[in-house]
Amino acid sequence: MKKKHIYIYSPSSAVRDKAAFRRGLKRLQALGHEVEVDEAALATHQRFAGDDATRLAAIARAAASKADVALISRGGYGLTRILDAIPYKAVAKAVERGTEFVGLSDFTALQCALLAKTGAVTWQGPALGEDFGAEHGPDDIMEACFDDLLHGQGEGTGWRVPARDAGALEGFRALHGATLWGGNLCVLTSLLGTPYFPGVDKGVLFLEDVNEHPYRIERMLDQLRHAGVLARQKAVVFGHFTGTRKVPHDRGFDMKTVAARLRGLIKAPVLTGLPFGHVQTKVLLPVGAKVEVAADGRDVFLVWGHRGAGHGHGHAHGGGQHHHDHDH
Amino acid sequence: MKKKHIYIYSPSSAVRDKAAFRRGLKRLQALGHEVEVDEAALATHQRFAGDDATRLAAIARAAASKADVALISRGGYGLTRILDAIPYKAVAKAVERGTEFVGLSDFTALQCALLAKTGAVTWQGPALGEDFGAEHGPDDIMEACFDDLLHGQGEGTGWRVPARDAGALEGFRALHGATLWGGNLCVLTSLLGTPYFPGVDKGVLFLEDVNEHPYRIERMLDQLRHAGVLARQKAVVFGHFTGTRKVPHDRGFDMKTVAARLRGLIKAPVLTGLPFGHVQTKVLLPVGAKVEVAADGRDVFLVWGHRGAGHGHGHAHGGGQHHHDHDH
Repeated sequence: MKKKHIYIYSPSSAVRDKAAFRRGLKRLQALGHEVEVDEAALATHQRFAGDDATRLAAIARAAASKADVALISRGGYGLTRILDAIPYKAVAKAVERGTEFVGLSDFTALQCALLAKTGAVTWQGPALGEDFGAEHGPDDIMEACFDDLLHGQGEGTGWRVPARDAGALEGFRALHGATLWGGNLCVLTSLLGTPYFPGVDKGVLFLEDVNEHPYRIERMLDQLRHAGVLARQKAVVFGHFTGTRKVPHDRGFDMKTVAARLRGLIKAPVLTGLPFGHVQTKVLLPVGAKVEVAADGRDVFLVWGHRGAGHGHGHAHGGGQHHHDHDH
Repeated sequence: MKKKHIYIYSPSSAVRDKAAFRRGLKRLQALGHEVEVDEAALATHQRFAGDDATRLAAIARAAASKADVALISRGGYGLTRILDAIPYKAVAKAVERGTEFVGLSDFTALQCALLAKTGAVTWQGPALGEDFGAEHGPDDIMEACFDDLLHGQGEGTGWRVPARDAGALEGFRALHGATLWGGNLCVLTSLLGTPYFPGVDKGVLFLEDVNEHPYRIERMLDQLRHAGVLARQKAVVFGHFTGTRKVPHDRGFDMKTVAARLRGLIKAPVLTGLPFGHVQTKVLLPVGAKVEVAADGRDVFLVWGHRGAGHGHGHAHGGGQHHHDHDH
């Protein structure tokens, strides 16, 4: 495989797990890549990876790096503070030149703001430490999807909707030319009402979150609903909502009731089981790309074209139970 | 004192602490009031005080009650779900006829939505259980402020800004005819981008929250800032932010740094120490009322007129350290 240039930087929280950071670097190097580490990747200021100016400069350096991929070290918190100072044009130009920006969680803020401001496409996907530096080794599917991105081969993903949610696919009609977007629900919602929230019409909105109580997830979904965002989507896709905290007085209120209620309130189908979120097995998803969505039974196929190319002939990696037959 | 009619209802979470609920009822009765309890006040459905239809009907009954005060049993969660079905006109008419709606926390959603939809003024203040039913008895200042509301005597409040924040009052110029609004930061922010967020210009925005990490508080404040809301305010007033959860890797990031940073980012002064929030000593605050704000040293005076009357001659109750000289 062709050696690729990967730029590691820290736009959000300070890297605390330095062992995972080092494991991640070694893994990428072992895969044969040239890994460049930003000078402030391990900076710390309070809970952040350096003060606001330091992190803004790191983003600018990532944009100027000419790397094939600019990969965040980790998520956490820090980007919503600096949304009014991010060098969007520089990042969009880097994307145009071929640098793929990859990240998740807090990174959702930069990705959505960039989409709103410039239309540039970036990737929700892994972070260096938690994914490539995972203690028991990185996930196969995540690495295969990342490899596809590096080599321009990935054109989609597929997964199987859990049996209990199969009803959402009844009468599902394939979508063409819809805009895929989304990310972390909490971070996405924290952009509502600001100029950094993308005005995506006829979109496919994917959402995940971690360590939130289901009532907070519902409140955020309702905010998107009341804001008219959900009515403008062709599909809503749930990734994993992990670490949802229950309390005794929920009395049956949980993510299942949240999803069931949402289905009664919006027209778009609410598909579940997307292999994405704060989990090891995650696919990469292009934020802002045009996609097609098709279903066959409980199997959903989400297909995007190569950047700059048309839709195609390619293969798709999935994280569902039936998509483990991986050829890498 | 004249006997007043107080209507108790549950628009949000189910009442779990029935002992506190009963203590609250007894306390209001002991004060000589006629206390009417809504038929669904103790209803439960999942985590809610009845399903959505039940709680909507309870709000409609509170509006039709002709009570002097409609007081929530408790906050929790439940109102953002039903913002598109609340009988705003009926509530506004009830306000016009003289029913004062009092509550806090989740109730912020109804109050702000009502303000956005109708301009009607309601009160941030106590809840039945946690305040009148407090285990060691209700707070004196809270009760005095509530009594002022019942008897049309309260025209304002005052408090002392903590010494460490005195700088925020340097060069403070008195405000006239500003609109007071606010409440729970998390609930208020969950309205951003929706038709239920009040478009208050030249306002005095007060905020409180409970059990949130300072980074979440900062993210919400930044959302209000990026949305242009803070730039349109004449003052931002912090009540209590209680139960703020710190973690080891905050490394100095806390509510003090959050407030200090905000002061560097917005023009409006950020005043602290307002006796309001998830604390026992709380004043009542009219959401949507025109107010005047003056300062004398570290003492802040927030004055509103009687409903339907002009500004006046009245007295103000405060929760600051120097305002304990209470005449009730």
